[in-house]
Amino acid sequence: MAENLKVSLDVMGGDHGPETVLAGADIALLRKPGLRFELYGEATAAMPVLEKFPRVKQASNFHDCEISISMDDKPSQALRRGRWKSGMWRSIEAVKAGEADFCVSAGNTGALMAMAKFCLRTMEGIERPAMAALWPTLKGESVVLDVGANVGADTGQLVDFAIMGAAMSRALYDLDRPTVGLLNIGVEEIKGNEEVREAGQILRESQPPGLKYHGFVEGDDLGKGTVDVVVTEGFAGNIAIKTAEGTARQIGEYLGAAMRRTLLARIGYMFASSAFGYLRQKLDPRRANGAVFLGLNGIVIKSHGGTDAEGFAAAIEMGHDMAVYGINEKILSDLRHFGSQRSPQEQ
Amino acid sequence: MAENLKVSLDVMGGDHGPETVLAGADIALLRKPGLRFELYGEATAAMPVLEKFPRVKQASNFHDCEISISMDDKPSQALRRGRWKSGMWRSIEAVKAGEADFCVSAGNTGALMAMAKFCLRTMEGIERPAMAALWPTLKGESVVLDVGANVGADTGQLVDFAIMGAAMSRALYDLDRPTVGLLNIGVEEIKGNEEVREAGQILRESQPPGLKYHGFVEGDDLGKGTVDVVVTEGFAGNIAIKTAEGTARQIGEYLGAAMRRTLLARIGYMFASSAFGYLRQKLDPRRANGAVFLGLNGIVIKSHGGTDAEGFAAAIEMGHDMAVYGINEKILSDLRHFGSQRSPQEQ
Repeated sequence: MAENLKVSLDVMGGDHGPETVLAGADIALLRKPGLRFELYGEATAAMPVLEKFPRVKQASNFHDCEISISMDDKPSQALRRGRWKSGMWRSIEAVKAGEADFCVSAGNTGALMAMAKFCLRTMEGIERPAMAALWPTLKGESVVLDVGANVGADTGQLVDFAIMGAAMSRALYDLDRPTVGLLNIGVEEIKGNEEVREAGQILRESQPPGLKYHGFVEGDDLGKGTVDVVVTEGFAGNIAIKTAEGTARQIGEYLGAAMRRTLLARIGYMFASSAFGYLRQKLDPRRANGAVFLGLNGIVIKSHGGTDAEGFAAAIEMGHDMAVYGINEKILSDLRHFGSQRSPQEQ
Repeated sequence: MAENLKVSLDVMGGDHGPETVLAGADIALLRKPGLRFELYGEATAAMPVLEKFPRVKQASNFHDCEISISMDDKPSQALRRGRWKSGMWRSIEAVKAGEADFCVSAGNTGALMAMAKFCLRTMEGIERPAMAALWPTLKGESVVLDVGANVGADTGQLVDFAIMGAAMSRALYDLDRPTVGLLNIGVEEIKGNEEVREAGQILRESQPPGLKYHGFVEGDDLGKGTVDVVVTEGFAGNIAIKTAEGTARQIGEYLGAAMRRTLLARIGYMFASSAFGYLRQKLDPRRANGAVFLGLNGIVIKSHGGTDAEGFAAAIEMGHDMAVYGINEKILSDLRHFGSQRSPQEQ
């Protein structure tokens, strides 16, 4: 049953458009043969590419859209120009209409956020959705949010992010009460800005049922996997995730250079090549591609705009897992539970 | 001449106190034999340790201080309790009195910032000092600020950080007009918060003489070395630097695990051991230890509280370079230059 999911794809989104999106769909289909696609994009650009992927063609319906959202459209522009008729909008709308279980787009983040919010609306009590990513750690994987849906977050929003992130962690990893930390510049209670300190106080005192509040965590706790869920506002979260990606790439370059330095190093590299293969796979940023908007009435996955087919396939699989594990139902039930504990003006 | 610098050390600061500070001084002294130390700390705790480092003892004056600032004192507490008489305060005061060319402390960041600001005062036109770190990149090294002296920064402060960071980059790397980027969540002009967008506009339009404004940069540009100077407010900057440290440590663990996985990998590791040694050195966080407070009338270096002797020595060497290259004179002259272009309420 889990396999028979329908996915709507924004075919024109991302830096490479249909080439990457359809090749990614092809890879995802190999791994999850029950997937069905609703494709939204410009037929003239996309149809010739679709011919190259007969498996995808057979498993999909194509919907011609007259407009595509570009990577540098402002969210307001995108909404004005592309509502009802762009591939991005229509792929989101397919989720609303029940024609797809989730939607994946590699397009412009701001536009996707604006359209998804406008089309699907936020869950009751949620003011702004957050973008959640899965962060590979020494212990496994953590949920990190917000990684860039919003710039800044007030106290109530940070608390909402904690509840939504914990629901996601419970859904994906079958944890009873995942640990939740607030990202800060120190672990002492006096550290950070007012929003973070107040959110910490609320989480500590209210003890929401679906999570265990750990306290503040710092940037280096992300890789350690100190907590299951790391909560932060979108500016710092986005910088953290991109800094980690950049550092991984930088170290990969150092490693390559080190292994080419001497003849002995090159010989050693040959002997250890399977170990390096394993390491390469561990560090492959494409494996962790995809972030989900939490707090919407529908599942929308944002893929990195610059990723390749392998990365886009990972984003599709992320959406697949979110749908199979009923992430939104879990969030809704947690919000209902916790909502009654919050003061009315915070809801 | 460069060698005959006097350093004041907060001997009790950091997680390991005199053991690390004096062992670090010993290492620094081996590399820069002309250094002289003014040591400030509690004699009962520090003197027995000093006996273990006869070279340092010979090159130093010890000043007994009745109070030490602890790692979890609030800045206001530290100031109330420790002003005039703590080792932290007196090591800063030595810089003010001209008895030391720079000061190094591994103590509580907030307390150090509060005391340094109170004792040395900020330069004319500077509202808040920033903490600048040297970030190893694929191209060499970049200056990154603020990495945690402040939480948040307004437009004028971000512009000040840009000017101070550029002066530091020019001083250290002998660049004519270092490139400066503002850390943001995207490179398009519409991205980020108002402060960052406005600071970008001011830097673009005013074209300060000592720097070349590049535009926005993202988290992954840090490791690439896209610009010589990366400017951000202290919350995001602190999270970025700690995330990078954590990611480097995480990958180091992966690498170690990969090389222990199979017999072939272990053989490969043996062949390539010098290459791994080179890599280890490249990734050693102690080499990049030390951040300097910019915008004060005196040089104060903050060492990581948890570092070891090698790391503390690197912080001393950072201070040495700052003093030798006349960092503060360069900043003052740039501020005077640029100050005349700013509107009066911004000065």
